[in-house]
Amino acid sequence: MNITVAIDCMGGDHGPRVTVPAALDFVAREPGFDIVLVGRRDAIEAELRARGTAANPRLRVHHASEVVSMNESAADALRKKKDSSMRVAVNLVKSGEARACTSAGNTGALLAISRFVLKTLPGIDRPAICTVLPTMRGEGYVLDLGANVDCTPENLLQFGVMGAMLVSAVEHRERPSVGLLNIGVEDIKGNETVKQAGELLRGSGLNFYGNVEGDDIYRGTTDVVVCDGFVGNVALKASEGLAQMIAQFLREEFSRNALRKLAALVALPAINAFRARMDHRRYNGASLLGLRGIVVKSHGSADSYAFGQAIRRAAEEVRNDVVQRITQRMAQMHPQSHISQAGVATQ
Amino acid sequence: MNITVAIDCMGGDHGPRVTVPAALDFVAREPGFDIVLVGRRDAIEAELRARGTAANPRLRVHHASEVVSMNESAADALRKKKDSSMRVAVNLVKSGEARACTSAGNTGALLAISRFVLKTLPGIDRPAICTVLPTMRGEGYVLDLGANVDCTPENLLQFGVMGAMLVSAVEHRERPSVGLLNIGVEDIKGNETVKQAGELLRGSGLNFYGNVEGDDIYRGTTDVVVCDGFVGNVALKASEGLAQMIAQFLREEFSRNALRKLAALVALPAINAFRARMDHRRYNGASLLGLRGIVVKSHGSADSYAFGQAIRRAAEEVRNDVVQRITQRMAQMHPQSHISQAGVATQ
Repeated sequence: MNITVAIDCMGGDHGPRVTVPAALDFVAREPGFDIVLVGRRDAIEAELRARGTAANPRLRVHHASEVVSMNESAADALRKKKDSSMRVAVNLVKSGEARACTSAGNTGALLAISRFVLKTLPGIDRPAICTVLPTMRGEGYVLDLGANVDCTPENLLQFGVMGAMLVSAVEHRERPSVGLLNIGVEDIKGNETVKQAGELLRGSGLNFYGNVEGDDIYRGTTDVVVCDGFVGNVALKASEGLAQMIAQFLREEFSRNALRKLAALVALPAINAFRARMDHRRYNGASLLGLRGIVVKSHGSADSYAFGQAIRRAAEEVRNDVVQRITQRMAQMHPQSHISQAGVATQ
Repeated sequence: MNITVAIDCMGGDHGPRVTVPAALDFVAREPGFDIVLVGRRDAIEAELRARGTAANPRLRVHHASEVVSMNESAADALRKKKDSSMRVAVNLVKSGEARACTSAGNTGALLAISRFVLKTLPGIDRPAICTVLPTMRGEGYVLDLGANVDCTPENLLQFGVMGAMLVSAVEHRERPSVGLLNIGVEDIKGNETVKQAGELLRGSGLNFYGNVEGDDIYRGTTDVVVCDGFVGNVALKASEGLAQMIAQFLREEFSRNALRKLAALVALPAINAFRARMDHRRYNGASLLGLRGIVVKSHGSADSYAFGQAIRRAAEEVRNDVVQRITQRMAQMHPQSHISQAGVATQ
């Protein structure tokens, strides 16, 4: 039986214009998956017609009358829009009609709705946002990227478990290495929370590497980098800003005069290959980990190629049982997590 | 009368081999400044001889028998090495024999020694590390970069004052804009500390822009970006890692085959111009702000060009009265800072 993925067609900067063609492309390439397109039936069907197709058993439309806007508060989206495309897509995961959902909508709203509807897994206090990034050695996973602005050591430990299980599932690595983001590699560095998180991770049974620093994210020192959501968000956005600045500087230097423009033409194959490696669209799709279901957040500005990558990520997580893996690992940890939280052994 | 700058000649990965030629070049170019070379007399004089010169009234040697190593604890450096080149250089600032000092040594030790010897300015609880970075609009200043892993809202306010005064002094900008690094631009974003810091900055009389995000560092949205040292350190190091990864990807793509290598030759002027703009050596020299004296930290791996930039930064801060400007601004703020700290007005 095919696996079904629900898509919030109305989210993001472009709505159905991007989400519908991405879904069409996905079902055409992936025979093992079906899609439910969630949102305003008229808008979605118009987009399907414009592409010369219609709803079919593998691509059905599920009407939802409301849309969560990009700047709406999470609380309003949760309380006042019970029939938003985002809420309905998450509901489909809850009811089992879909195994995962993907949305390019408002991150705060998606987090609040997912947490309210799906709930967190046993032993997980809060969901975290995890993304994959290019590194000098391949790819690396970083979490949390903004779901949690204040984290306890236990939260960071849980992020480590969730990240490691995600990587072992989708990258098929036996014991992915986990690094704790800090401002120095020595155990004594950092604030109290990070120091205690280091202790917990060392005793967790995970393949804990120890502290890593900001540059290790791109060196690929570890498969997973764990940090609180404030730090992770700033590091990721600073990286985006720097990459844009570098792209601008390169453009300017290669167009400064006629000779330089000629050089740019000659250099085009190298520049295009470089661009492809740096293309952030390839890495689109951040996982909301720690929930009783799979939810993947696409960048709001994603085009249909990028949104397709986010759908693919959701599909991969279903195919590789990410939720079950996290659940099982947390069940093994639970006695220990009780010790650390309450100072009482439960064995 | 010339202004004197003290140089810790023994600090950094390369010691006198880098620091001495940088000092020679600096005194040759800057007739208004003298240099005191601090460290092991034999090592420094050997380096001077190797360069075909000797100590002279504008370039004198001050012997210090010990060296703080790069991985020594700050506490050990402070307590056990009273005659280290780093300590003696800072002592010269304290005694008034020098107006500023520059060191490429161990950051933690330099901070601890500077704070112990020089003390912080009135109203400043802790010094902060501030550096200048390239942005899409020119240059921007970010602090703190790792001196303080846990900051109060008052600390962040003080960083705002110190950063703004530094920029107004050395960049000659009337009212530099100050942004508060956060994970969203709305006032309600972030943790409690950042929210309260936003309140304090709004009432500070500074040209406060409001919240900025990680990418704004490189967009140049504000002249100054304020953050706690943990976040600032991670953002800076993540940027370093990303820049290195991008450089590696570019190198790889331009050397993949004979045709690509040929293209690289044709593109060399553009690539070199790009490299020069991105050259982190130009931006070498982080200011330890908030002290009763000027201390500039060079990157440990600096070459003599980069170390020269750090000396130049120290010289610029003396020439533009950075310490006095921060002192005056803090004196204006003091009543308010008392209110926020103790809940009692002192007016």
